[in-house]
Parts: sequence; C-alpha cells; structure tokens
Amino acid sequence: MYDIVIVGAGLSGLSAAHNLLRRDAKLKLLILEGKDRVGGRTLTQDVPAAGGVDRWDLGGQWVASSQTHVMQLIEELGLVVYPQYTKGKKVHHMGGPRAKISHYTSSMPSYSLLVLLDFVQFIWKIDRLSKSVCVEEPWRSPDAVRLDSMTFSSYIEQHVWTRELKEEMAVCSRAVFGVEPSQMSFLFFLMYSAAAGGVVQLLETSPGGAQEFRVKGGTQQLSERLAERIGIERVQLSSPVTAICQGDDSVEVRTLSESFSCKVVINTCPPHMAAKLQYQPALPADRQQLSQHMPVGHMTKFIVTYPTAFWREKGFSGEIVARPSNSCPFSVTFDATSPSGSPALVGFIAGLQAHDWSSTKLEERRDAVVSSLVRYLGPEASHFIHYVEKDWAQEPYSGGCPVNVMMPGMLTYFHPSLRRPFGRIHWAGTETATEWCGYMSGAIQSGHRAALEVLARLSPHTLSQEERKAAQGPAQPNAQSDRWSYVTGYSPLPVALTLTAITLCATLLLVKPQISRDVIGQVIAWLPARVTKRVVP
Amino acid sequence: MYDIVIVGAGLSGLSAAHNLLRRDAKLKLLILEGKDRVGGRTLTQDVPAAGGVDRWDLGGQWVASSQTHVMQLIEELGLVVYPQYTKGKKVHHMGGPRAKISHYTSSMPSYSLLVLLDFVQFIWKIDRLSKSVCVEEPWRSPDAVRLDSMTFSSYIEQHVWTRELKEEMAVCSRAVFGVEPSQMSFLFFLMYSAAAGGVVQLLETSPGGAQEFRVKGGTQQLSERLAERIGIERVQLSSPVTAICQGDDSVEVRTLSESFSCKVVINTCPPHMAAKLQYQPALPADRQQLSQHMPVGHMTKFIVTYPTAFWREKGFSGEIVARPSNSCPFSVTFDATSPSGSPALVGFIAGLQAHDWSSTKLEERRDAVVSSLVRYLGPEASHFIHYVEKDWAQEPYSGGCPVNVMMPGMLTYFHPSLRRPFGRIHWAGTETATEWCGYMSGAIQSGHRAALEVLARLSPHTLSQEERKAAQGPAQPNAQSDRWSYVTGYSPLPVALTLTAITLCATLLLVKPQISRDVIGQVIAWLPARVTKRVVP
Repeated sequence: MYDIVIVGAGLSGLSAAHNLLRRDAKLKLLILEGKDRVGGRTLTQDVPAAGGVDRWDLGGQWVASSQTHVMQLIEELGLVVYPQYTKGKKVHHMGGPRAKISHYTSSMPSYSLLVLLDFVQFIWKIDRLSKSVCVEEPWRSPDAVRLDSMTFSSYIEQHVWTRELKEEMAVCSRAVFGVEPSQMSFLFFLMYSAAAGGVVQLLETSPGGAQEFRVKGGTQQLSERLAERIGIERVQLSSPVTAICQGDDSVEVRTLSESFSCKVVINTCPPHMAAKLQYQPALPADRQQLSQHMPVGHMTKFIVTYPTAFWREKGFSGEIVARPSNSCPFSVTFDATSPSGSPALVGFIAGLQAHDWSSTKLEERRDAVVSSLVRYLGPEASHFIHYVEKDWAQEPYSGGCPVNVMMPGMLTYFHPSLRRPFGRIHWAGTETATEWCGYMSGAIQSGHRAALEVLARLSPHTLSQEERKAAQGPAQPNAQSDRWSYVTGYSPLPVALTLTAITLCATLLLVKPQISRDVIGQVIAWLPARVTKRVVP
Repeated sequence: MYDIVIVGAGLSGLSAAHNLLRRDAKLKLLILEGKDRVGGRTLTQDVPAAGGVDRWDLGGQWVASSQTHVMQLIEELGLVVYPQYTKGKKVHHMGGPRAKISHYTSSMPSYSLLVLLDFVQFIWKIDRLSKSVCVEEPWRSPDAVRLDSMTFSSYIEQHVWTRELKEEMAVCSRAVFGVEPSQMSFLFFLMYSAAAGGVVQLLETSPGGAQEFRVKGGTQQLSERLAERIGIERVQLSSPVTAICQGDDSVEVRTLSESFSCKVVINTCPPHMAAKLQYQPALPADRQQLSQHMPVGHMTKFIVTYPTAFWREKGFSGEIVARPSNSCPFSVTFDATSPSGSPALVGFIAGLQAHDWSSTKLEERRDAVVSSLVRYLGPEASHFIHYVEKDWAQEPYSGGCPVNVMMPGMLTYFHPSLRRPFGRIHWAGTETATEWCGYMSGAIQSGHRAALEVLARLSPHTLSQEERKAAQGPAQPNAQSDRWSYVTGYSPLPVALTLTAITLCATLLLVKPQISRDVIGQVIAWLPARVTKRVVP
C-alpha cells in the first residue's frame, strides 16, 4: 500500500515526487513509467561528432531566464546553462514560390515596408489580446467564447494583410506547437502566449525568450538527477499503466503485469495518452470531452554534426527560417554547437510538414535536409559527420511533441476539468501549467502544484495556510450561471443601418441646409402645438 | 482461426457480416461486441404508457425515403415505417432573453422580414457551398483548406446578420451533431450536408428530410433481425476488444479474457473508441491524428408518455424549437405517439446543454423538461405517465451520440486515412460513410463498403469486375503533390490599394476632364519622341 503512485517519470512526475518527499520524507511513493527511461519529452543522446562523440538533446532543449521553475531546478541540481549562439547573418526565405533568400542580422527579418507594417500591427493586436486573457480560468477572459470559437487561422485570415506574413505565422505555429494554425483555438494561442509572458517571448532567442539558453550536457539530466535524489528504487521503468480503479478508501493502479494500491494518484500523461487508460469509475463527461479536444502536435527534430562550424566562418548564425516547399522539410534551424565545441546544426520538421515527411524513408529526409542546408548555407553543408533525428509521433507513451493543443470550444466548455482532481486522481503535466505551459518549466510548475494538492490531502501539517488555500484551486465555477447569455452577440445589421441613416441625415444637413430647415419646419408645423411648445420654447 | 472478426455489433458491423455471408456462406466470421446487446447507437425499450406499456427508440429513430440503404434493409427485413406526425401548430421560441413564444404551421418559422431575408441568403450560401464539396475526397473540394481552417461558428459570425438566426443555427448544430458550431470544421459541416443531399434535408420532416419516417416497433429491430439472419452464435456479446495485433499471415484480436485469430478485421468502433484499443504494430501517424481530431457529440434523449395526446387536441404538432436558457434543457421536441396510439413526446438535450445538464440529478432534469413543456404546450403537460431518458455520453462503448464530428484541419490533412485499410484492418462505422454519414443509413452503407473490401481480399470470385474496382477505393492521394501551393492565398491589401487607385483616377477623369487632359498631355510631352510616335500615331 503506497501513499502516492505517480504515472509518468517525466519532469512533472519527478518534480511532484521531489517536492512531496522534501516536505514529508515518510511518504511511501512509487513512480510508474511506460518508457525504459526517465525524462518524458526530454531525451539526450550520444551523437558522432567532430570530437569523436558528444551529447545532444533530441527533445526539449531550450530554457529561458524568465522560466523561473526550470532555472531554479537547474541551479538546485548543479547544472549549467549557456546562451544560444545567435551572432551573424540569419537566413530568411519566405513569401511565395518565387521568393528570394534574404539575410539579416537584427532581431527582425528584412521585411518589405508593407510586411513590416503588417507585422507590427498584427503582433500589437495579438499581444494586446493575450494580455487580456486569464491563464488560470481562460473562460473568464473578455470575449472568451468568440475568441475560442475561431481557429488561429481564422484570426490570421481576418487580420493579416500580406501573404508573406500569413506564411510566416504558419511557420511560427508549426515551430512552436507542431500544428497548423487551423488546428488550434485562437483563445488557446492567446492563453499559451500569456502563460509565456507574451507572444514575442515564444519566438525570440533574446533574454527572456523561449530560445535563450541551453543546458550543458543536455536537459534529460534534469530528470536523471531528480530520479537519483528521489531514489532510483522508487522509479519503476517499462511499466505502462493500463487502468486506474478507485475504491472507497484506495486506488488500484494496474500495469500489464502488476497492480499497486495507493491513497492518491498523480496522472502526468499528456491528455491524449491519459484518455487511453481504463478508469473505474469512468472519467466525468467533461474530462472525456477535454481529452477528445486536445490533439498533440507533430515534431521531428534533427541534429547534423560537422567537422567545422563553417557557417560561423562564413558569417552565418546558423538560424534559418524557411518557407514550406516540397524540397525543404524543415521550418527552422539553429546553431547547435556543443559547449565543448563540436559543431552542429539543429532543425525542426514540424506540423503538417512532419506529417508529410514521416511517410518517406530516413535517407530521403536526410538528403532533403542536407540539400536544403547546402542551398541556404553553402556547399560545405553536404560534408556532414552524422545526421540523427527523432520523430516524436513514433515515440511510445508520447505519441507527439511538443505539446497538446486545444481545439475551438475546449477552453470555454471543458477547461475547468483540466486541473480539477477526479476523486483520488490528481492531474499534472506541462499541459496543465499556468506559467510557460508546454515547456519544461511548465512541467515542473505543474508537478509542484499537484504535489501541493496531494500534501493538502495526506500531510496538511507540512503546508502553510496560504499553501493549503492555493492547493484547493479556484472555486469550482458555476457552469450554468450565465452561460447562455454569451450566445446572444450584437447584431451588426441594425447597427449598420442606423449608422448609415445618421450619416445620410448629417450629410444632407451639411450639403443642403435649406432642405433640412424646410423639413424641420414642416415637422414642427405638423406637430401639435402643445408638443411644439415644449421642444421650441 | 476465423476468416473475419468484426469489432462491434451495431448496424455497420452487422450489415458487413450480412453482406459477407450472402456473397460467400462459407466464410468463418465472428462479431465481437462490448455491450450486452446488439444495435450500437440504436436502442428500443419498453416504457410505461397509456396502453400499459409500449416501445420507444432511445437512440436513432428516424429514417427517410432518400436514405436508400436503410430503406432497402427495412423492406428486406419485413419492417414497416410510418410518417412523423407534423400536423398543427409548431412552437418556436428563439431570439434573445426577451423573445416571445411564436407559433407557425408552415415549414418555415414565423421569422420577421429581416430574419427571413437573412435565413434565405444564408441557407442559399451554405447549400451552394455544400454542393461544391466532394464527399469521397473532401480535401479536393474547391477552397478546401480555407473552408477547413475555420469553424462553423466563424462562418456563421461572418455571414449571418441577425442575432436570432445565429441562435437558430446553434440550435440546429446541437440538434443535428450534438456539438456547438464552434466545435466543428465548416468543411465538415458542408461535407455532412452534401452526404445527406443538402443542408435543408438535415433539418426537415418533409419527404426526403432526415426526420421523415419512424420504424414500427423501433429501430433496434434492424440489428436484432440482422443478427438472427447472420446466426446468433456468430455474435459474441459482452466481449470488449482490447487489442488488435497483426502478424505476417494473420491478426489476433484480444478481448479481456479471450483471443481470436483471423485473416481480416473490420473495425466499426467510432473513432474515439477505436483510438482506445492497443494496436500492434501501432496505427500510422495520420490515423492516430485523425482520431484525435474527431470528438463525439453529446446527446441526451428523453421520452415522456401521456394519457392523451393533449397537444394534438389543442392543435399543436408537438414540435418545439426552444432557445437555450437555464430553465429549459431541451433544444427540440417532436410528437412521438406510437403506431398503436400511445401518446408521447420525444426531445433532445444536446451539445453544451447536454453537458451542462448532465451534472444535475435525473429528477431535476425531468422537472425542468416537464415545466418547459407546460410553458410551451399547456398545463396538461404536467400530468405525464412516465419520463425516461438516455444520456449517450454515459453509454459504455459509445461514449456519445449521434456522431463523431471533425475539427478544423482534420478533413484536409488526415481524412485519407478514414477509410484506408491498415494492413489487415478495414474500417467501417457511420463516420466513414459517404451517403448519409452519421445516420443509420450511413452505417449500413459503410458496412457494405467494408464487406466489399474484405471480399476482394478473401473471395474475389464473388465480386463483379466493377465491384472489385470499387473495393480498391480511390487512388491513394499523393499527399505531398502540391500541398504547399495552398498556403499562399491572395493578399487583400495590394488588391484593395490598386482598386482604390483605379477608382480615384476614374473619378478624377469624370469630374475634371481638363485636369486629366493636361496630365496626359504632359506625360506625352515628357516621353521621348520615338515612344510617343508608337502610342499616338
């Protein structure tokens, strides 16, 4: 009989366990993991490189100074970060089939004046909107239902003027979420941006931006070192959970071959994976609908190692943003030279492109990647040492990367069940985070939150009064309160007709004062004397 | 060792089996069903009524003369249909919190002139669009990516002028699909309408419309009689399939306690249920994504039986269309008096309303339904005999009703995997139909199609050359062919600027011909003599 069984030994599960044991070392705790390793969507591997062999991240790799939870953990575990290399020319190739390759060194691509204006107005609009979103309870944001009833793509169609920027936003959507702009709710995009501190933070390598730092030795170390601190004996690998059965006093967590009793479960599976488990009693309807409205992105990451960082020598930073085409699989690449100096490039085949290219052979994809690198950085790109890639859609117990997105209607209708415990089951995972949701930092934050909830249940004495209050979460919304008042929006036609009538009258008054004077005179004459007296004393 | 194992004993699985055995009686065939009954989303039950007890459908209940597959089966099985009762006043209560209850007898609600105009223009637009959609390969329809990048809600926002019609369309969406307009792709709505022969067909009780006929004795009889014809010993109930493992020469289908070997599997589970099975090897990425983009609707159906059909006596047809509010759970009701004359009303709590009301107690829902009936039909409505309801979201191995919808991005990106066999697994179920998709008729059509595919594999001699060709399905699309040419849409700003410039010039020419003549004269004077000669000979 355990106190707590945690499903998943990724960053959220391990952070939860770490926090639980730090507060109450007596807790009997077990972590069950389907994979044969810890780390979830982080994975650090040896790759043949200039210096013989070196380590690279094939999963999550960047952290930022603004990501307090992961930065704190990095420091605590004695790990070191170093900045993403960004010096030199960046390659930019967007804007239709006949677009030219352009180079720039500032933080802003070399847009034409029109596209630049478009970019500024669009980013201003979405950033202002994202600031109005309530991350904890997004359905309470102003205009939530309308924003959640449209796709990100619909908003782009309505508010972006230029074809080039439309394409650019699609590339951003693919690179950040692993999905097309048509495949997520616009309110979700805003909430995700808000959780990161702003739209620009998601895209930038500048201080605070999501691509600011990398971790020396790889990000999987975070999970490995956490597992060591927790105690390896508490982490059982290759044990995929199949069912969670709740009784009156305990929960039974079943794997293919074993069964474990406990008081509380923390389920850290990404929503589409959590939906595959058997639950007894069945999950509530809104939680079931929630997981049906949160598909996972598709991302294939590749590392290409080189004998020399030829791009740096030629004045390139290694950053490429490429328009989608049948010849170039990737959306973006970056310099990935290791801290010990082994030159490498990292790139992402994302969203629909990942989907299209996943049906081709590895060699074909590799050749397409390398010949695109040759096109953008020069012939030296063809003399690589090693090409390695990871298609996260094929990874068992992940099934996709980097994050589960939310479809229209999910945030306003089913979101309350995202973090709400179901009986003895508590939910964690980066999708449930409110700060840097979808990132490693979010995973850690969600683990801390779930640990608080469980401690409030099992060891309330270890918590301060504030923490006990925080662990209860927001008051459960009265779902039916004024739901149906949303449905009735304003009606543009009567408004437009009224405005037109007013404008016409005003024009008439200005252009032909005589007519209006006549009309007013006649109206006054027509009105009964009593009324006239009051109006024109 | 079986030839075929069919997962699911609903209408599609049973129709497939029926067709298979009719063509080749030697086939060894087994149907595995999770529920303890056949019929899937059809269910006929005894309900206390005026005549003691009578039978009503708590699942799918209507058929139409335009639904050839189900009408043919009804005839073949010796069943009888009778028309939906529609005589008398219909109750219509839409259009904002202060809207009045109105009555009408025609097929069109008593709209104001403005709403009527709006209705006509909107239905004309979406019907014309739906006629342009290719049901078999929707991604090939004109403008498919744009139509699939928006929700039905976004299209309504852009093209409906009046608040009342917006509300009306939301009620239609709930009643037909069990979801809000924000929760489905607009292209899916169009394809679904096209598969039914037009938008109006979905909504009407008139000849050919989806609500035209009911089946005497209930629709579950279709499945029961099919099961008898196939042989009850071939249908194994209460045997939920958990895993499908494909080897080189055979497939192993596992339930909780047994395992069956076969050559081919027909999987008729609705997509969100099919996703819960274990597959070895894993389903292809696009099929996995498909099921993540097809949530199921939410529908609760209720039957209220009465001593007399008091509404008929008062001149009502029993049809009510009600605006959503906190007091009225249902969207629509109809007369449901049985062929033997037991008076009853049937109604639907659908979409978000089903979701909201599912958390209340049965008694509370019943009282709210009855008091709404009192409000719309008179005080006699409170003297009911029995109230019975079925929340399909709670039904094991269904999890929702009436149909799985498609989210934006699904149709253009993942749809090809909807009917494409995966190794020895073939797909059926009403969601895979191309005629009356989502209806009983569609389920039967999909069963026929899957049977053809399997016969082409196992007993090709039983098929005509045409059938063999049809069984291959459409040529697999070359997914990458010109996918990325879609991305580049037109750019409205340059077009608008050009049009403005032309308009200004034209206005100038008309208003001040002298100015234009001067300008043209100067331009000609400025041009070199040679060029001028060619232009003005």
